[in-house]
Amino acid sequence: MTTTLDTTTDPYHSRTTAEWEATPRIDPVVWGDVASGPLDEARCTSYEKNGYLVAHELFSQRETTALHAEAERLAAEAEPGPGVVIEPESRAVRSLFRLHETSELFRCVASDPRLLDVARQLLGGEVYVHQSRINFKPAFDGKEFFWHSDFETWHVEDGMPRMRAVSVSLFLTASTEFNGALLLVPGSHKTFIRCVGETPENHHEKSLKKQEFGVPCPEAMRMLVDHGGMDSARGPAGSAVFFECNTMHGSSGNLSPWPRTNFFIVYNSVENRLVEPFGGTPARPAFLGDRDATPVGAWNETRGR
Amino acid sequence: MTTTLDTTTDPYHSRTTAEWEATPRIDPVVWGDVASGPLDEARCTSYEKNGYLVAHELFSQRETTALHAEAERLAAEAEPGPGVVIEPESRAVRSLFRLHETSELFRCVASDPRLLDVARQLLGGEVYVHQSRINFKPAFDGKEFFWHSDFETWHVEDGMPRMRAVSVSLFLTASTEFNGALLLVPGSHKTFIRCVGETPENHHEKSLKKQEFGVPCPEAMRMLVDHGGMDSARGPAGSAVFFECNTMHGSSGNLSPWPRTNFFIVYNSVENRLVEPFGGTPARPAFLGDRDATPVGAWNETRGR
Repeated sequence: MTTTLDTTTDPYHSRTTAEWEATPRIDPVVWGDVASGPLDEARCTSYEKNGYLVAHELFSQRETTALHAEAERLAAEAEPGPGVVIEPESRAVRSLFRLHETSELFRCVASDPRLLDVARQLLGGEVYVHQSRINFKPAFDGKEFFWHSDFETWHVEDGMPRMRAVSVSLFLTASTEFNGALLLVPGSHKTFIRCVGETPENHHEKSLKKQEFGVPCPEAMRMLVDHGGMDSARGPAGSAVFFECNTMHGSSGNLSPWPRTNFFIVYNSVENRLVEPFGGTPARPAFLGDRDATPVGAWNETRGR
Repeated sequence: MTTTLDTTTDPYHSRTTAEWEATPRIDPVVWGDVASGPLDEARCTSYEKNGYLVAHELFSQRETTALHAEAERLAAEAEPGPGVVIEPESRAVRSLFRLHETSELFRCVASDPRLLDVARQLLGGEVYVHQSRINFKPAFDGKEFFWHSDFETWHVEDGMPRMRAVSVSLFLTASTEFNGALLLVPGSHKTFIRCVGETPENHHEKSLKKQEFGVPCPEAMRMLVDHGGMDSARGPAGSAVFFECNTMHGSSGNLSPWPRTNFFIVYNSVENRLVEPFGGTPARPAFLGDRDATPVGAWNETRGR
């Protein structure tokens, strides 16, 4: 914490104030138009209003089965190290990062038009992958993940300047009320919550298991839910939820005998590439926030795959 | 652990075998008949099949509001001690026991015909209160409770001979998919799962916060859920769920801004009163398993209230 934090010109400064604050979003939500992608006007309007969109069975059962098998294989072979997050207590693999670099199959998914064209439409132009990972929420003892806005962390700890990114969670298993489906607060993407507390050194080493900084306080959450309510993203395997980078989300634990596994990709606009972290700490490792903004559309040329 | 456990004549012995076992229930589920109480044939059949029954808005909003206020008052005034369980970490009150003895209002609820007559019908005759308590699952950090059969514990640790008890959870707040509603496995009451592991001394001092013995293993749970699926007991405040003492149940954590509070009463048949605990450990304190089997119908005479 050596840098003086810019609370005068940075509209999204956070972890800088003694009390939490709510400030209106100043960026558009949908950057493209209806003509530029697969989403029709009703879907665009819904995303603009709620900050997320669930697309049922976007991928076929056959595709999803193959992806799930690959995810299981990668988890079984994973060695502890950066980009591999182990569940506290049970020692099960919780997340595997940078799948678009390490797995040919998941790289194909990240460049699949069913996801990519939606991301391009929402973000108004070419995009690159800021982060990708598989999230495993194991049966019986999958742990909950508290509410947070991804953008808050990406802005403060990675240096993402503005709200011009979208996350996709592709369900590799069915997501139900019982196995820890993604919970979302509709409309929360229109308010930026400044969180309280300075960022500790190497915060990400702990925050991937249990986040303690950059999380909204109860009062902030109560305000957002009073206004927008709460929803869960449920659907059969192969479904996907697209959610805006500032949409407040979390997930409950998993007491069911059904694991919940998803592939998570963050698309960021190439016009929103990372700068120095706004929180003044060193940038997090590339597996969390890629600083190589090569557009997905240029993958074939530049990386020869 | 000085007593030799009776694995030859006790049909429901548990924590006695090296591996888990499933054994069929040998007791009736519905002990009374349709003529003997408020439940019609369809409701009796459903309870017999599933092991639980949800009754929506059994108590009025006005009654529920008064009960909830009383619950909050009792929690605010509670001093640490037996019958008062504090949430690990947050220090919030999680459970208050023996409400039918300590609160005039909750004593009235326990003897209210809307609950009592159903219990009498299901259990085929006069009943007494084995245990009563308020369960608080606070907003944002209410903790999950893993799957278990109450009867397993009551048999092993309290000495309840047979499956002839019913629990009622009366919702003092709405119970939703988001605030840790009771989860149940339909049909699970028809199978007794023998759990693995000896009971430690004074087990209840820990098990009320996090149960580690008398819980089914993942394989047992998988078998039950494969067979019966999973359900959640949801409804507005004033609703109640009646569930059979051997129905496998649990609840997720509560990430929502809405606390989940309920009043929980266990009715046991007077013909099923407690004997020596079948697990060989000393009986648990009276707030967990009352050894005074005075029928609720005789409360006015014997206790003069």
